[in-house]
Amino acid sequence: MSLATSEHTTKAFDFDLRELKCMVAEMGGHVEKQLLTAIDALIRNDKERGEKVVQADATLDALQHTIEEKGIATIAMRQPMAVDLREVVGVLRIANDLERIGDLAKNIAKRVSALGSEDMPRQARRGMTHIMSLAIGLLTDALDSFASGDGEKAAAVWTRDNEIDLMYTSLFRELLTYMMEDPGTVAAGVHLVFCAKNIERVGDHATNIAESVYYIVEGRTLSEERPKADSTSLMRVMPSSAPSSAH
Amino acid sequence: MSLATSEHTTKAFDFDLRELKCMVAEMGGHVEKQLLTAIDALIRNDKERGEKVVQADATLDALQHTIEEKGIATIAMRQPMAVDLREVVGVLRIANDLERIGDLAKNIAKRVSALGSEDMPRQARRGMTHIMSLAIGLLTDALDSFASGDGEKAAAVWTRDNEIDLMYTSLFRELLTYMMEDPGTVAAGVHLVFCAKNIERVGDHATNIAESVYYIVEGRTLSEERPKADSTSLMRVMPSSAPSSAH
Repeated sequence: MSLATSEHTTKAFDFDLRELKCMVAEMGGHVEKQLLTAIDALIRNDKERGEKVVQADATLDALQHTIEEKGIATIAMRQPMAVDLREVVGVLRIANDLERIGDLAKNIAKRVSALGSEDMPRQARRGMTHIMSLAIGLLTDALDSFASGDGEKAAAVWTRDNEIDLMYTSLFRELLTYMMEDPGTVAAGVHLVFCAKNIERVGDHATNIAESVYYIVEGRTLSEERPKADSTSLMRVMPSSAPSSAH
Repeated sequence: MSLATSEHTTKAFDFDLRELKCMVAEMGGHVEKQLLTAIDALIRNDKERGEKVVQADATLDALQHTIEEKGIATIAMRQPMAVDLREVVGVLRIANDLERIGDLAKNIAKRVSALGSEDMPRQARRGMTHIMSLAIGLLTDALDSFASGDGEKAAAVWTRDNEIDLMYTSLFRELLTYMMEDPGTVAAGVHLVFCAKNIERVGDHATNIAESVYYIVEGRTLSEERPKADSTSLMRVMPSSAPSSAH
């Protein structure tokens, strides 16, 4: 390849990469909005807002598809090596995680229609609001670290998911207690446990995004195994162990 | 590029693609085994087998990572166009779905340790066994269509996920009824609902794999919107509506 061609290819690559990053940032904004709206719909039991989130998810799927196609075409046409290739791969991974957060927001929004306005117990509402704000905070910080190319910030996000896992474990226990004490709340409780699990998963994907940002910026992975504190899948809660303060 | 170089690149590409396909087929075998073992552990309440599935999941993650890296390197080095590029992209998508099925198997396996041997009601056991065999059948057929490059078979898989969704909806209702009638079963019931949901998701990913196979073989997407029959997120089940035959 002549020097002139190589320079042209590099410029074309830089242009493509910039465009890809813009698309992912745009997608991040959409996903954040979807998640906020889904959560708001759940807390306020606003079925109409929930329905809007469900409808809008197709846009995110299409956006992720476009980003994937553009990323692959960039790799095929510009043949980036090493650092450049790493950036494209990182960007594609972020788009993939964003799409999955979008799905989780849609799943939460779908359940709004199954819940009545009185279905969320006061105590659970507090826990739910708390875990939601943790998850949104994590997503926002992960997206900020991407926008500013800040590896340190990305690493900080990465260590924070543990908090969400602990909060989920406590919320899971609370909702189970509530269901055991009043069987009439079982259906609502199951939907709320699914919503809580979806929010906990948002934390996982925000953490993945932070990992990808770190990989793009620093060129290595946050290899140390992330501490995982969601132990609810191991949890047996017997009626007798239900703390009386759970209402 | 000279004719000789171009021919060399084509051969090298064919070699890479064949290797990629072998790796994905191998990964498919692992995932099938993981899913079967997880399900068997759940049905027999075999905690040791469950633990083995949890441990083995890391191998799948590593395999998916290797496939992704190899696929991207192939695209960057061989610059495949059109049909060839489509094949690599399709293969990468399949590996991604396989990794997610692996995660679902792990999630099911994790919950085995939270369940006692008497925790699955007889009626639910029948439903659970049924939905599992549907999901495994779908995955096996999707993987077969990949191995044989059979677009027609892939399209047939694609239409069958509806059955699993319907089965899940009925199982969800059954488990809820069971929990409402006996609050002592709430904790086990919630874990079982999560397992059922995971199995329903296996169906979704098997369907995605079939879509990717179709895309690889036929060069177009199964664009018609797949009918979706899991309506449990919209479902309100009140204690009074519980059918008495649910035990």
